[in-house]
Amino acid sequence: MAQGSFISERDLIKRISTILGSIVNDDCAVLDSGDRYLVATTDMLHRKSDFPEVMTPWQIGWMTVAVNLSDVAAMGAEPSGVLVATGIPQGTDLAFIDNIFSGFSDCTGAFGTRVLGGDMDSTDELNLTGFAMGFVEKDLILMRSGASPGDILCTTGTLGAAGAGLLQLQMGEDKGAFVKNLLEPVPKIKEGRALALSRSVTAMMDNSDGLALSLSDLSEVSGVGFVLKEEAIPLARGIEEAFGRDKGLELAVRAGGDFELIFTVKPSRIEAASKAVDLTILGHAVEEGLWMETGGKMKRIEPSGYEHSVMTSASS
Amino acid sequence: MAQGSFISERDLIKRISTILGSIVNDDCAVLDSGDRYLVATTDMLHRKSDFPEVMTPWQIGWMTVAVNLSDVAAMGAEPSGVLVATGIPQGTDLAFIDNIFSGFSDCTGAFGTRVLGGDMDSTDELNLTGFAMGFVEKDLILMRSGASPGDILCTTGTLGAAGAGLLQLQMGEDKGAFVKNLLEPVPKIKEGRALALSRSVTAMMDNSDGLALSLSDLSEVSGVGFVLKEEAIPLARGIEEAFGRDKGLELAVRAGGDFELIFTVKPSRIEAASKAVDLTILGHAVEEGLWMETGGKMKRIEPSGYEHSVMTSASS
Repeated sequence: MAQGSFISERDLIKRISTILGSIVNDDCAVLDSGDRYLVATTDMLHRKSDFPEVMTPWQIGWMTVAVNLSDVAAMGAEPSGVLVATGIPQGTDLAFIDNIFSGFSDCTGAFGTRVLGGDMDSTDELNLTGFAMGFVEKDLILMRSGASPGDILCTTGTLGAAGAGLLQLQMGEDKGAFVKNLLEPVPKIKEGRALALSRSVTAMMDNSDGLALSLSDLSEVSGVGFVLKEEAIPLARGIEEAFGRDKGLELAVRAGGDFELIFTVKPSRIEAASKAVDLTILGHAVEEGLWMETGGKMKRIEPSGYEHSVMTSASS
Repeated sequence: MAQGSFISERDLIKRISTILGSIVNDDCAVLDSGDRYLVATTDMLHRKSDFPEVMTPWQIGWMTVAVNLSDVAAMGAEPSGVLVATGIPQGTDLAFIDNIFSGFSDCTGAFGTRVLGGDMDSTDELNLTGFAMGFVEKDLILMRSGASPGDILCTTGTLGAAGAGLLQLQMGEDKGAFVKNLLEPVPKIKEGRALALSRSVTAMMDNSDGLALSLSDLSEVSGVGFVLKEEAIPLARGIEEAFGRDKGLELAVRAGGDFELIFTVKPSRIEAASKAVDLTILGHAVEEGLWMETGGKMKRIEPSGYEHSVMTSASS
């Protein structure tokens, strides 16, 4: 009898890893390339999951490149090129296609790289799959592994703006103040490089799936836990006023799409890290568990956030 | 008024190149990587265009990797890793997904490389977008540019088997002798490397879109023409018996999916090339035009073959 069941993206990846052999669980794959590492990543974006109707084709192009570059940033690498495979529905306006490509071009250009090539196909649903590469010195690469208990947990920027943007879209507020944060993510290339060069960071990743899920990934790969101090969470400007503190915190911890860098720093090197980027200390690494500390009280954090799930049918 | 019109993949790519800046028209993008070049390519495959219903999930996985590795082979490079972004429809059987990944794993393994990572998403249509990378010594890289009039035009293997397989599928002969040639393409990694190491080749590409269209691309990038000798075309074994010589020739020249290497050789180096791989001389490069020579008579070849077209609407 065939039965339907949902399997999360993360569980499916674990299942598949047993078929493919060990897959490094990091923002990018890492390859030896002489005196440097080559890092490479891919992200598939498509109409239903990633491109709300309100999004312009330029934003669609920008986002496709940005989310891939964010993975390169998370390794401390310098981007060296992007490829994009574009599946375009029949009947798409040529101007729409042009604007998608302008988005590709503007986002690569803004971060010092370019589109080197790609593939083009005709698909029912708009599907843009990006592929970004970068290089990083071998002694500077930053991975998800490497955090130790006692390390200081930090983030770049502020949190929750993208989630607030999604909320505004869901409420029909297409012109809401946070919508642009959701639709035009900014990869932290400069910040990632500066942190790598500061030699102060022990582990890093981007928070594209939300802070809680990212901490869960970092925790699993590094073999540590984290204490997150509620009062330290840097809410994006205006969120508390618009949605209240509780909702703001929920967005900052659970919602995806912020594309900030989450990283751990050796306590003795926190000054070097602070000089490299504008950072906020969120808490610290501990032996195990994910904890929220509120007014001295500790509570477990559920590792949930933005995650694709795939409905599969398993024969039983 | 909006009007529907078809634009070919090649024309759309030309249009987009003006937005993105110069895109090298080759099998792979090429990046400087110290003492070697890094080559990188992407191919998007999806259910409607690329995966006939008769195809097993293992074959779907194999093909996705194979078509990307073929582009790496065409540069004379050694593959160093593959990423795959997989868009899987809701309700897909877990065993089906497992078998796709076994296909990825077996095809990468067969050619000395592996899947390093990827992305997973839930899409309406099965969409597998592969990315392959490789390295090649700077003085050995083979590109589409470089052919000169007088160079000898060659191919690896035989031609037409994949086209014959498609024809059999269209005739409902799912178990036809040529179907496997279509569904399980073999990237010519070993042959590409041997040709690069032979230092005898002036230009190279794969013939995935068919011989005529590949010659047209090679001709455009190298700025030469080609004379193809009809009697020299190596028809795949059994094609003439199954479909007659005329249909066989048409399949060999027009049909896509063979994934052989088409290349040009300096006349003085043809012996070195012949020692490197089992090759067939198809003709030679001339100043201009694509020509078929049949019994001493020359006829122009139309540069058509397997090509995606995208229906767009242009406002007028």
